[in-house]
Amino acid sequence: MIQAPEGLENVVVANTAIGLVDGQEGRLVYRGYAAEDIALNQDFESAAFLIWHGHLPDRDESATMREMFHRNRTLSATALGILKLAPQMMNPLVVLRSAFSLADAAWPPTTEQAVGLVAQAPLIIARAYRTSKSLPLVEDDPSLDHVENFLYMLHGKRPTTAQIRALQAYLILTMEHGMNASTFTARVVTSTQSDLISAVVAAISAMKGPLHGGAPSEVMTMIDEIGTKDNAETWIREKLEKGERLMGFGHRVYKTEDPRARALRSIVKSLAPEDPWFDLAIYVEQRALELLQEYKPSQKLYTNVEYWASAILRSVGIPPELFTPMFTSSRLVGWTAHIMEQAAHNRLIRPQSKYVGPEATN
Amino acid sequence: MIQAPEGLENVVVANTAIGLVDGQEGRLVYRGYAAEDIALNQDFESAAFLIWHGHLPDRDESATMREMFHRNRTLSATALGILKLAPQMMNPLVVLRSAFSLADAAWPPTTEQAVGLVAQAPLIIARAYRTSKSLPLVEDDPSLDHVENFLYMLHGKRPTTAQIRALQAYLILTMEHGMNASTFTARVVTSTQSDLISAVVAAISAMKGPLHGGAPSEVMTMIDEIGTKDNAETWIREKLEKGERLMGFGHRVYKTEDPRARALRSIVKSLAPEDPWFDLAIYVEQRALELLQEYKPSQKLYTNVEYWASAILRSVGIPPELFTPMFTSSRLVGWTAHIMEQAAHNRLIRPQSKYVGPEATN
Repeated sequence: MIQAPEGLENVVVANTAIGLVDGQEGRLVYRGYAAEDIALNQDFESAAFLIWHGHLPDRDESATMREMFHRNRTLSATALGILKLAPQMMNPLVVLRSAFSLADAAWPPTTEQAVGLVAQAPLIIARAYRTSKSLPLVEDDPSLDHVENFLYMLHGKRPTTAQIRALQAYLILTMEHGMNASTFTARVVTSTQSDLISAVVAAISAMKGPLHGGAPSEVMTMIDEIGTKDNAETWIREKLEKGERLMGFGHRVYKTEDPRARALRSIVKSLAPEDPWFDLAIYVEQRALELLQEYKPSQKLYTNVEYWASAILRSVGIPPELFTPMFTSSRLVGWTAHIMEQAAHNRLIRPQSKYVGPEATN
Repeated sequence: MIQAPEGLENVVVANTAIGLVDGQEGRLVYRGYAAEDIALNQDFESAAFLIWHGHLPDRDESATMREMFHRNRTLSATALGILKLAPQMMNPLVVLRSAFSLADAAWPPTTEQAVGLVAQAPLIIARAYRTSKSLPLVEDDPSLDHVENFLYMLHGKRPTTAQIRALQAYLILTMEHGMNASTFTARVVTSTQSDLISAVVAAISAMKGPLHGGAPSEVMTMIDEIGTKDNAETWIREKLEKGERLMGFGHRVYKTEDPRARALRSIVKSLAPEDPWFDLAIYVEQRALELLQEYKPSQKLYTNVEYWASAILRSVGIPPELFTPMFTSSRLVGWTAHIMEQAAHNRLIRPQSKYVGPEATN
């Protein structure tokens, strides 16, 4: 017997060819490519292809993948029925999970099955959101690709090119992030030879936990509270004087700049002229980093991905309650890649526990 | 970094005061009590109380637990709606998971929440089963306790005392079995501070995998094929001559007799006069053990729990497609106990992976 450290910290539970999170060097690698390069230069469908298949699509593969996404952009009668049953105030991750749940998928898991869930997620999220706000539903537009259609279904109007580019970069940069509670859950479920839908339903159940899915909307609240550039220094100093944490700075894994934050900042900077809130976010980051240096000179704190994610999600009009569902809609790509990888080299994951209860009475 | 063995074999991932599986000595312990003793001497509700609370209920606690079970024996409009949406031929575990899924539970997990799911599972399983067979639905009988009502709702008639006793022993003996893929899944999901329903939905998703939930109906098929005592030796010899496996013998963990098999055998023996199929099952076991000794003298094979589980489930009229759902309905007790234990001493489970993909190109 081997006693694992609590939380399985630093325990390698799988070999993977999908992604590398290098916290020391500040690198995030998808299948050999820097994730930032993919986020800045590829569209959502091509990035998903890369994560599933291990190489960037050529022109034919790209057309086929786009066609698969379009073909799968439809909800079953069962999923529509579950959306109708969902109470108006239900947690949108619970709605997403339930809309997926009442279905079975054949073993082994396939890319076609994965595309099915990734293509359907925006339809479910947009419907659940508009229903919760008593807004009329918006049908998808078959002429639009994944990201543009997602924004169109949420808002009922065509997004700008800048909005598509910003959201696409965010979604690509959150597709995959090595091992974590939800990806591990998906792999444990798959190890029983349960189906891809089951593994995704379980992964969403893990993502729902606040210690994992997190609360990226807190950054948005902070920048909204600051409100103007003039107010930034006073607001930040007040927090730091009280010994409170600034949201959006520091990360458990990255000991240097988070490469996702770097890529999203460059997107935000290029779009700042179009959105004064971006301009404020850039200013607040700069002041915050200076003041953190002044108050905590021994710590080297960097802006994390949540900071820029908040800025982008706010600028494309995503309400805070949809931050985790948006994240989930892209992480589905990484989960399904791990599910297929686990299935291809499968062994049942069956660890041990140590009994520390009362001794048996007989 | 610590590289864990594949499948986390022999890796202790949690301390638990709930149950001990001692494969060397052939012991299964629930909270300090031999599980066989609990199965032979307690009812379902008291056994669940023991697993949740760590001690057997006194008279007042027993009455309160029974009252909680009765009060929770009702399905929400949402769950009923999902049962209506479920296609007639749907895997019953998928139906059970989905009927639970469209709901949220407060953190931290509680016994009341656990009783809710355990009390509702028979209603969902019985409805899904009778719908799949186009049989009229049977309302629950509020005068009956958990196990008797379960059989009543499945079959539409009151079971015999022998049937209640046999099924109750089976359900109690499958409530808890240390760490395994589904229990571990429940604990990983709980470690994110996701809710009890989410953790159970994820655990059912793992149970659905054939490497975990298994195929206990294969034993039933074997005994049915043998058909008569006279036929047993020829049938078994033929299998063993061909080098095929006999279903119901041998277990990955137990190196001696599985204590659950021993307890279920004693129940079956006491009920054999009431059911000729029990008589056949006892005879087949005896001949099979003799012939296994003759053909594989170097291996010491024992009858496993699936053998006697099959005999009991068949004798109380459970069709093969409900074997895994019945198992799930009792394992809910163990899962929810582990969920509460994980929540009480929580730390996020976040292991690592090792990247073995192509090196980054820049």
